[in-house]
Amino acid sequence: MTDLAESDLDDADQVPPPVRSTTADAQVTTPPVPTPAQVPHMKWWGWGVDGVGFHWQDKPAFAAFVQKAVGLDLHTAQALEQPSFDRITVPPSVAPQGLLRDLRDAVGEDAVSLDDESRVVHTYGKSLRDLVRVRAGDLPRVPDVVVFPADEAAVQAVVAAVIAADAVLIPFGGGSNIAGSLEPQPAETRPVVSVDLGRLRRVLDVDADSGLARIQAGALGPDLESQLQERGWTIGHFPDSFTHSSLGGWVATRSSGMQSDKYGDIADIARGMRVVRPDGVLVIRGIPSASTGPSVREMVLGSEGRLGVITEVTVQVHRIPAKRVIHAYFYPTWTAGLAAMQAIAASDAHPTVTRVSDARETGFSLATSKESKGVQKLLTRGVMLYLKRRGWNLDDVCLSFVGYEGEADHVARQRKATERVIKRHGGFSLGTGPGVLYDQKKFDTPYLRDFLLDRGTAGDVSETAAPWSRLNSVHDAVIAAAEGVFRDMDRTGWVMCHLSHSYHSGACLYFTFAFVFGDDPIGEYDRVKSAIQQAFIDNGGTLSHHHGVGLEHAPWLEQDISGEGVAVMRGLFTAADPGAHFNPAKITR
Amino acid sequence: MTDLAESDLDDADQVPPPVRSTTADAQVTTPPVPTPAQVPHMKWWGWGVDGVGFHWQDKPAFAAFVQKAVGLDLHTAQALEQPSFDRITVPPSVAPQGLLRDLRDAVGEDAVSLDDESRVVHTYGKSLRDLVRVRAGDLPRVPDVVVFPADEAAVQAVVAAVIAADAVLIPFGGGSNIAGSLEPQPAETRPVVSVDLGRLRRVLDVDADSGLARIQAGALGPDLESQLQERGWTIGHFPDSFTHSSLGGWVATRSSGMQSDKYGDIADIARGMRVVRPDGVLVIRGIPSASTGPSVREMVLGSEGRLGVITEVTVQVHRIPAKRVIHAYFYPTWTAGLAAMQAIAASDAHPTVTRVSDARETGFSLATSKESKGVQKLLTRGVMLYLKRRGWNLDDVCLSFVGYEGEADHVARQRKATERVIKRHGGFSLGTGPGVLYDQKKFDTPYLRDFLLDRGTAGDVSETAAPWSRLNSVHDAVIAAAEGVFRDMDRTGWVMCHLSHSYHSGACLYFTFAFVFGDDPIGEYDRVKSAIQQAFIDNGGTLSHHHGVGLEHAPWLEQDISGEGVAVMRGLFTAADPGAHFNPAKITR
Repeated sequence: MTDLAESDLDDADQVPPPVRSTTADAQVTTPPVPTPAQVPHMKWWGWGVDGVGFHWQDKPAFAAFVQKAVGLDLHTAQALEQPSFDRITVPPSVAPQGLLRDLRDAVGEDAVSLDDESRVVHTYGKSLRDLVRVRAGDLPRVPDVVVFPADEAAVQAVVAAVIAADAVLIPFGGGSNIAGSLEPQPAETRPVVSVDLGRLRRVLDVDADSGLARIQAGALGPDLESQLQERGWTIGHFPDSFTHSSLGGWVATRSSGMQSDKYGDIADIARGMRVVRPDGVLVIRGIPSASTGPSVREMVLGSEGRLGVITEVTVQVHRIPAKRVIHAYFYPTWTAGLAAMQAIAASDAHPTVTRVSDARETGFSLATSKESKGVQKLLTRGVMLYLKRRGWNLDDVCLSFVGYEGEADHVARQRKATERVIKRHGGFSLGTGPGVLYDQKKFDTPYLRDFLLDRGTAGDVSETAAPWSRLNSVHDAVIAAAEGVFRDMDRTGWVMCHLSHSYHSGACLYFTFAFVFGDDPIGEYDRVKSAIQQAFIDNGGTLSHHHGVGLEHAPWLEQDISGEGVAVMRGLFTAADPGAHFNPAKITR
Repeated sequence: MTDLAESDLDDADQVPPPVRSTTADAQVTTPPVPTPAQVPHMKWWGWGVDGVGFHWQDKPAFAAFVQKAVGLDLHTAQALEQPSFDRITVPPSVAPQGLLRDLRDAVGEDAVSLDDESRVVHTYGKSLRDLVRVRAGDLPRVPDVVVFPADEAAVQAVVAAVIAADAVLIPFGGGSNIAGSLEPQPAETRPVVSVDLGRLRRVLDVDADSGLARIQAGALGPDLESQLQERGWTIGHFPDSFTHSSLGGWVATRSSGMQSDKYGDIADIARGMRVVRPDGVLVIRGIPSASTGPSVREMVLGSEGRLGVITEVTVQVHRIPAKRVIHAYFYPTWTAGLAAMQAIAASDAHPTVTRVSDARETGFSLATSKESKGVQKLLTRGVMLYLKRRGWNLDDVCLSFVGYEGEADHVARQRKATERVIKRHGGFSLGTGPGVLYDQKKFDTPYLRDFLLDRGTAGDVSETAAPWSRLNSVHDAVIAAAEGVFRDMDRTGWVMCHLSHSYHSGACLYFTFAFVFGDDPIGEYDRVKSAIQQAFIDNGGTLSHHHGVGLEHAPWLEQDISGEGVAVMRGLFTAADPGAHFNPAKITR
């Protein structure tokens, strides 16, 4: 197994900057429709692609950090072998022949799969719960059949076949979901069809005047972004899952990306969509803003498959900016960092990324740096010593990244305006070095989770958004809640946080937690996760800023949007899908 | 009748600038709950308050303009007398005694009105159709009773009484709606209760850290804005109807304001809301962004009363900017002006207002200026002469307003960056003089409509949004469609347009039309309006950018958001209100 190939810190200097196309709007080649076999999937048992994983031996501070954080000794820990699919027992498909025949008519013989590994790949997303269950062969219900429609007409035929057979349909994009949005209900007696959108990968059209692109919903992040960049455009949407998540999945879960401060969340970016439903295609055209009653666009956003199958999305796209930089800063405390982000949001400045880690996560970042590289290098250069002399408590230091984009003079002016605010809040500039590393490392964290899981350690994430006035209490309450559970379970546990997106009235706080589990990893994970979710709600936060509801967060929906809010939503689902064919029981029953 | 009191052009120099409070967050007095009799209403027969109207005698170019535009000779035209309520026959209330008793229990004896004028005031909004009908005493169905609840608990009791009596409830805010969202169905046999929210006028709380204010839904624009300004804040939402529309009405119709380029539409501003429903209160908390399934927040937005009664909204508020200026520019053609707005939207610049009128509307603006004042003054100063010498065709000149807000240096920088784009598109700066006038005149146009109606001339507005690539064709098609109908009716008619809001991917186009009507004013109006609406849809626009759907735009809903989109929305309404008690048949049946 190689180290994180494309994003290894050693490759820092070789990663190309964003391409600014000189052939914008030139004729571009249309990528081929992949065969069903060509549709890429992640490992059945973990995140990402085969042969890529996390290594620690070249990160001198990492082992000591892990020892301290969760009590795991990497020098002696035995790693599990890579799970073998041969040891997994997959329940047989119960798809009736009539349904299979109709599906084959709908998508073609080669695009209907009863293969066990494919069915297992389409059973779960990639939450900790999902990984633990799939590795253990805990598969109470897997899709009976996986279909790979090549276009919207094929999706329509699949939907017709599903309705005719009184079956259940679960749309599948990149499979990166961590809210339990993909799994069939264990007690489901009807046939379950997983509809993999992976062949619908094309950027169909760019309206250059309007900055609007029509893109098929199955396109994965890197695929659609490279098709756009070939034409001189970017979508500006880079969630942590970017490499393995799809446009349709982003829409279905109300995703948010790392540069959403500038480009908006997917709910802002996605202006139009096409959704296949039993009686026809729901079409929302790409309109900049409309007053057409309750927003059907905003009903499809976040619908997690319950209203139909999203086949196409019209998204805002932007010319690739002339310049894009990420600067790093240290703050003496979390409170100072948070106050700085709030002051930036209230100012006239418009940075494209605002991010600050608490002291714990800053410690984690330092510990995952390689020797003489990145943030680690700063350490050795004596920055810390200097800050200590200035009276900073080094245990409280918080690392922050702020991004700027646009024409060069705009970037310079935004940085100047933002740094005035940063300075007023005690921020200390570290330049662009760590930012380059951040840009490269940003999609890697899930690999670390598999590394830990191989060593008996559970790790996952949970995120919320709350008004600025509540963020400090949300943060402190979540830390206290998680630590309380760790204490109750008599475990050494770790929980850390960063602010990942800013809005006028508040921000997203993103928490990561880890602990060495005992006999009941999912039960223990549930205790920690539930405590964190409850702390969100109790302190004025939402159950999720951008991961969705699925099954995992559904218990908090009523506390979040009120009983009547859930009742209205449930009414929408029931009316739109009275037979409960579309991903039933997700979000709310 | 006096001239437009607060906004007369003669008062240009006396209008105070926005107050920057020096006592921000100081103790503020809570305004009293008005008695039912104190709730302000517009004239039963027209726009605005008694004693204010439009005068033309001091506008030297106006009469000639009107003669040319619609063939009306103001010098000889006989104005109708002010309508007398005595001549109106109001159908008797059919509210049963049991319902009235429950309503009196709910809101108090003095807050239940069976008064004919009050019932008529609550029958219609203020569209041309509404004004023609109410002046003619065309009242097939009026609310049987009007109630004035003082708080949310009283609204809950009203809802309970309505459900118990199998009655119909229509919420009423400022009554400024022009989409037919307020009127009872003519064939409605159940008792109809108009719920006037006017007593719920308070700014309840400002979370200064988060820039979030909780405000009661019945607060009218000037009332809530002055309460906010007393605390040092502004909502930044200034629709044309501002003086006579309410926060709840803005939310219920997805309103947009003149400074929405900076502050966002009400759909962005309104982060949380409380909606009284039969089984409880739907509560969406003020969260900056959330992934909690299909957005219930965005279902309440635009719901026009169909999901319940909005009693409270949590909105984003902003510190009053240090500086706010509106600069005026001329463009040689509409195409140049449109291209400039598009280029500004694509640039790094962030003005707060982007507006450009076509040549027709520019002509109208010049004609409504007083002698030696405003834009008129520029004329006399020879600007036009100068532009003519530069080769401009003066018939094609387009007037534009662009606003800048923030700290003084930010305003200067934004203006510089924006004016680089403006200059590249041939724009010619007129300075701030006309902008001051724009700021004052902005809420006056509806008074002009009553003035024309008094003289047998129909005038109204219709607006859309479309991608940048479609705006030119939308504009040309709408002009052609309206003129085609004028020609078919053998009338001299007028239609003009401005771009009122810019987005990344498109803009709002706002059309105003007028013509001298014959025997069937509503039938003729319908022909013009329908032709305009159809041109919107046929050319890639939406049926409304910010006026809502009501009854007036409902015929185009399916063409706009597709049959399946309407089916999903109808399912939402039916499930949320199976008995059809809440403003039935609005938006879609």
